Amino acid sequence: MIRATSIQPLGWLLATSFAVILPLRALAAEAVPSFSKATLAHAETIRLDAPENNHAMKILESLTTEVGPRLAGGPNDARAVAWAKAKFTELGFDQVWLEPVSFPTWQRGVETAEVLSPYPQPLSITALGNSIATPIDGLTANIIEFATLADLEAATKADVTGKIVFINKAMSAHIDGADYGPTVGARSRGASAAAKLGAVGLLIRSIGTDHNRLAHTGYNGYEDGVEKIPAAALSVPDAILLSNMLKRSKPVSVKMNLGSGPGPEYTSYNVIGQINAKRKTNKYVLIGGHLDSWDLGTGAIDDGAGCAVTMAAAEYIARKKLPIEHNIRVVLFANEEQGLFGGNQYRDAHKGDVKNIIAAAESDFGQGPVYALNSRVKPEALPLVQQMQKAMSGLNIQAGHNDGNGGPDLIALGAEGVALFGLALDGTDYFDLHHTANDTFDKVEAKRLNQTATSFAMFAFLAANAPSGFGSGESYLVEKAKSTKH
Amino acid sequence: MIRATSIQPLGWLLATSFAVILPLRALAAEAVPSFSKATLAHAETIRLDAPENNHAMKILESLTTEVGPRLAGGPNDARAVAWAKAKFTELGFDQVWLEPVSFPTWQRGVETAEVLSPYPQPLSITALGNSIATPIDGLTANIIEFATLADLEAATKADVTGKIVFINKAMSAHIDGADYGPTVGARSRGASAAAKLGAVGLLIRSIGTDHNRLAHTGYNGYEDGVEKIPAAALSVPDAILLSNMLKRSKPVSVKMNLGSGPGPEYTSYNVIGQINAKRKTNKYVLIGGHLDSWDLGTGAIDDGAGCAVTMAAAEYIARKKLPIEHNIRVVLFANEEQGLFGGNQYRDAHKGDVKNIIAAAESDFGQGPVYALNSRVKPEALPLVQQMQKAMSGLNIQAGHNDGNGGPDLIALGAEGVALFGLALDGTDYFDLHHTANDTFDKVEAKRLNQTATSFAMFAFLAANAPSGFGSGESYLVEKAKSTKH
Repeated sequence: MIRATSIQPLGWLLATSFAVILPLRALAAEAVPSFSKATLAHAETIRLDAPENNHAMKILESLTTEVGPRLAGGPNDARAVAWAKAKFTELGFDQVWLEPVSFPTWQRGVETAEVLSPYPQPLSITALGNSIATPIDGLTANIIEFATLADLEAATKADVTGKIVFINKAMSAHIDGADYGPTVGARSRGASAAAKLGAVGLLIRSIGTDHNRLAHTGYNGYEDGVEKIPAAALSVPDAILLSNMLKRSKPVSVKMNLGSGPGPEYTSYNVIGQINAKRKTNKYVLIGGHLDSWDLGTGAIDDGAGCAVTMAAAEYIARKKLPIEHNIRVVLFANEEQGLFGGNQYRDAHKGDVKNIIAAAESDFGQGPVYALNSRVKPEALPLVQQMQKAMSGLNIQAGHNDGNGGPDLIALGAEGVALFGLALDGTDYFDLHHTANDTFDKVEAKRLNQTATSFAMFAFLAANAPSGFGSGESYLVEKAKSTKH
Repeated sequence: MIRATSIQPLGWLLATSFAVILPLRALAAEAVPSFSKATLAHAETIRLDAPENNHAMKILESLTTEVGPRLAGGPNDARAVAWAKAKFTELGFDQVWLEPVSFPTWQRGVETAEVLSPYPQPLSITALGNSIATPIDGLTANIIEFATLADLEAATKADVTGKIVFINKAMSAHIDGADYGPTVGARSRGASAAAKLGAVGLLIRSIGTDHNRLAHTGYNGYEDGVEKIPAAALSVPDAILLSNMLKRSKPVSVKMNLGSGPGPEYTSYNVIGQINAKRKTNKYVLIGGHLDSWDLGTGAIDDGAGCAVTMAAAEYIARKKLPIEHNIRVVLFANEEQGLFGGNQYRDAHKGDVKNIIAAAESDFGQGPVYALNSRVKPEALPLVQQMQKAMSGLNIQAGHNDGNGGPDLIALGAEGVALFGLALDGTDYFDLHHTANDTFDKVEAKRLNQTATSFAMFAFLAANAPSGFGSGESYLVEKAKSTKH
């Protein structure tokens, strides 16, 4: 995922008590919406059985082994699409189809760096997504270190001109990834901030919480009208090393060499599979993940896991012949990493259809487990959310808040007023692996992935059997989207 | 370190009770050798003070930052020697000198691999030390997997000819590295074993206990008269990936490309610093580590840590003006990794001087802490060893056994009958980092390194003040060396 997360403190019920409890009292006189006893009983069988009997691990092993890295528009993009279409079919989905998504591509090339003086030794780096190349013989300059992006922005041209800027902000681990937002700016905006002050290159400390000598890539956006400069991430050990060299108060000269740059326009696909309700209906619950990944690892946790848990959730419901009133649609979005192209395209293609999307939830924060159920629904639907959370509480899923976002690929749909659910994933170790070569299947623990698949199965099943709507397409949710952070 | 460790079970006192206790009783009538009360009191001040006031962390930070990787004969070899000489001098050693060590060199080049079919994706590999290159356009062949080296050795030419052999033995973590010996044969002997059966290349699962996508290098020996084939290690995640592909029962074709090969003969140096006793003496206690490292990391734990703790131990004794009866010599051995050249050269240069080496101990198993005191001394000296261990027990150092080895660079001296001590280092996580790019200073914990430096200071101080010898040069230890595993 590329967004900065914004998960609010728990206990929203207290904070919103006036807004919520008064309508509930008013409703009580009428009828508080409730899931049927039969639906809740089925949900309980999912909770008890799905952790042992879902196929998420098998699906994820298949994707990472048979396709591997899935850079959007890269050598495995078409194979990933073919894999997903074949896998939906093999898993028995009722309908499987592709929707085209076009975007500009970016290609990685050589990526090396070394300290030339005073202490010659190699540095481990990786190009940031979208970075231009250095000159073919490399770029050599002295380093200037900043603790944060803000410190860089406060610097002068005299200090920075002609240098390679090094932003050395460490990131700390949190269950909700709370330090990603305050840290990722160095990656997403650092190059242009440095270029404005005359820098010739950017090296950032990896946006990651590990100490492995594997740098974290991720998207770097160039500001319009600002000169583009090459941008790369150092692994955390290399950032510490470089900083220790600089403490000796001698100029440190570094040579970096990047061969990356833009490639041709490419057309990939959102790959979609649907489990149909017995009675024909246009309404559906949308779950999914993104099919693309960065190229360094095999995209096991970002976001093979999201694809696998949502495919497995829907497949489980179909295989067990659990009764659903509405369809369950799994969307594997194209090119999330380089600009949410798949999510935006889905919005464009289904804009007129928003009221048919009962609710939507993406899994894009690793392998889980899910620890809280957030939502963004109309107030009248909150009793249903409470009942869903209660049903899921046996999976150690707490009540969340109603200011949720459904995942990066649902930002666009959310803005159209689609009701969203945020199945909050435990991301404590997510940024150890995120966007690195270390994002591989051997890191995935069956117990964690199975809990996540089960959570999505319960969510999708309950939402598909909700006795009344969550507010999709209503102006309340359109307005609410405007004030929600991503 | 390159050797297979062989640390015996604890409790040797029980196992050797007849051999030991009877002489002790006999001695009791005469005089059991004992450290003086003053010496033991000084040792206790070391135990209490040195963890806070030794310079091991500073020395190690300096070596890894200012020199970095130290491949024997590589670009930083001469800088490492210069660093060591200057650091001994800066630390106030009484004598500092170099002793030349010559050896053939090996150079790493490009190292890439990829699955070509049926599931094209890159693999993360590193050339094994001493490996020859592939053809310049790479080597392409189908993979044949073996669970162990023994399984390979039991295979037929018909199965193996024309293939790249893949040995996929996992290694488990133990405090004493007990699984290194049973696993490392795949690396040290796998290439020739494969070549004998007609293989064209070797890929081994890294000899390591981690799950990082960083392959472990290390020495590969070619058997005389057997064709040399290119040999590399896959990272553990890549070995798992490749094995999962092979489970699908389709031929898996891999292309590997290594640019490694022999370089010119090179002369490096054992760098030696000595703290002299007040009263002139030729006798000395020898401690040390090896100055070279593999090239992928900065050699922080292998074996910068060994250099740092022994330099810091001797410096601490000198700085605190603790009284020593004999000299303390710190030897930083050249080129341990590619064949124990420094240790062998030291033996050649000091063969006639063996009786002057009171005792010797190398630190070459990571950052510690030390958890047991092993020895290889004459039986009459065992009471002294017991007293040393008792003095060190406040550092959580247990009694060990008398079948110790002093470290890889002391194998040669040990064969000459030098009394050895084995300060057994906790190696539980050593093989997570060993011989990888991840062997960097940020992994070193001050508390662990300081305990190790303190242990070496206590050992060196006590041995330098021993009231009688440990048996160096006596035939008992020459004979004992012949039956000791390395």
